[in-house]
Amino acid sequence: MSRPQPHHRDEYRHFQCLPTRWADNDVYGHVNNVVYYAFFDTAVNRYLMEQGVLRPDSPVIGLVVETSCSYFASVSFPDTLDIGMRVASIGKSSVRYELAVFRTGELSASAQGYFVHVYVDAQNRRPVELPDAFRQALQRLA
Amino acid sequence: MSRPQPHHRDEYRHFQCLPTRWADNDVYGHVNNVVYYAFFDTAVNRYLMEQGVLRPDSPVIGLVVETSCSYFASVSFPDTLDIGMRVASIGKSSVRYELAVFRTGELSASAQGYFVHVYVDAQNRRPVELPDAFRQALQRLA
Amino acid sequence: MSRPQPHHRDEYRHFQCLPTRWADNDVYGHVNNVVYYAFFDTAVNRYLMEQGVLRPDSPVIGLVVETSCSYFASVSFPDTLDIGMRVASIGKSSVRYELAVFRTGELSASAQGYFVHVYVDAQNRRPVELPDAFRQALQRLA
Amino acid sequence: MSRPQPHHRDEYRHFQCLPTRWADNDVYGHVNNVVYYAFFDTAVNRYLMEQGVLRPDSPVIGLVVETSCSYFASVSFPDTLDIGMRVASIGKSSVRYELAVFRTGELSASAQGYFVHVYVDAQNRRPVELPDAFRQALQRLA
Repeated sequence: MSRPQPHHRDEYRHFQCLPTRWADNDVYGHVNNVVYYAFFDTAVNRYLMEQGVLRPDSPVIGLVVETSCSYFASVSFPDTLDIGMRVASIGKSSVRYELAVFRTGELSASAQGYFVHVYVDAQNRRPVELPDAFRQALQRLA
Repeated sequence: MSRPQPHHRDEYRHFQCLPTRWADNDVYGHVNNVVYYAFFDTAVNRYLMEQGVLRPDSPVIGLVVETSCSYFASVSFPDTLDIGMRVASIGKSSVRYELAVFRTGELSASAQGYFVHVYVDAQNRRPVELPDAFRQALQRLA
Repeated sequence: MSRPQPHHRDEYRHFQCLPTRWADNDVYGHVNNVVYYAFFDTAVNRYLMEQGVLRPDSPVIGLVVETSCSYFASVSFPDTLDIGMRVASIGKSSVRYELAVFRTGELSASAQGYFVHVYVDAQNRRPVELPDAFRQALQRLA
Repeated sequence: MSRPQPHHRDEYRHFQCLPTRWADNDVYGHVNNVVYYAFFDTAVNRYLMEQGVLRPDSPVIGLVVETSCSYFASVSFPDTLDIGMRVASIGKSSVRYELAVFRTGELSASAQGYFVHVYVDAQNRRPVELPDAFRQALQRLA
């Protein structure tokens, strides 16, 4: 297998701080691979909410169509993590977010991956063109 | 049903700050009842780890024998929560923790409950007398 | 502590079968205490959906106001579990479900607890009188 | 974006049946993207345990180094799912599992992805050559 190399903190534009929880650790004593996607999901949606472009009653919502993650080093409860974010590409209705998990004080990613959102009408779930406010919030991460 | 009244922040001795995660919200748009116990579990174990009395290779570990929670008001992602903690009673090998969930800036608990740990030998899982260092860490919350 | 005694399978009226998942196990190699409430929540809501009285667009939904669980013996992935259910009391708008976790083939509960639902209007979240169809579905578990 | 096409059931060698849980649904009323990885993790580890090659005290354990998933159609609680499995490649110490999620009775995958395990010594966490029994269990899925 050719494996990606861990990214450096400098390669990310924005960070969300997230503490681990007790049960994030699985029986092997480290955060289970599944939980990293919960970190990604939380970081992206919290950013969009903080920017005021996603709300509980938003007419446009993001559906996930593809995700991926590579794992380089374990993290464990009670670590606190910085989730690095950047936007790699913005299409007509889709966005590719790139994300990485850094332990506090570490420069090299413990894991990194991506997350493709398609933005759809909250009612009929069909793709819509990204609203301008959304596009502006995303360009700040590009 | 006779229902308990929400506690005030002043009734708790220690607080752990925990942000919510995207998927803590269920389909009703608020944090699912199950997740409050993850907050309790995380707060108790993080406190014990910060106090240096619980480690990944501890010879004495806490097993949960009883938990309970009353829910008064919804909390929702992306709320940040303060988990209030106090120790109600310390037995020979068991401890009753009382815990409450407060939204940032709120004085009245959104939910409150308790959590009984029995401390056991990590190998044979039989109850052991609480080690002194443990007892001291707990008395600071009593 | 005075502790409840484990219930027998015969004391429950209905069972839902649920397999455990890999990450239900925490670092101590058994299903984490939090997950039992996910079993309870799933069993109650699946029953209500199978009976046709709860749907994604139901005008009346159940909010959890109190939960509790006592733990007697560990269960672990990949165990398959039978979740026993019975209804202990039906009020004007609230229901107390009693639930227990049995490992396949075991007669004595590994854990047992309860779960109080208040039924509310899905829009304004104020308590409503239990609809007749609901009440009938619940009486089959009483 | 060029998107993969949903696979057919016939393309998988083994299936594990998994019911959804109440809180698998997020606020959008469908199973959250994160949970699919819990299905994958559960299916792979349950298979390895059923084959007798993974145990709680195994000297060799699988660590996840890469995962990915593409999502085609929503699934929702209370759906029951069939998780299709096949092994795409077996290296000296690593295995690439391919997995897909099918709703009961459907021929086309709702989601599909992969999962790369590196097998390591449970103590020092360094890669080891796949034991023979392991390799045989995996070849049955190739």
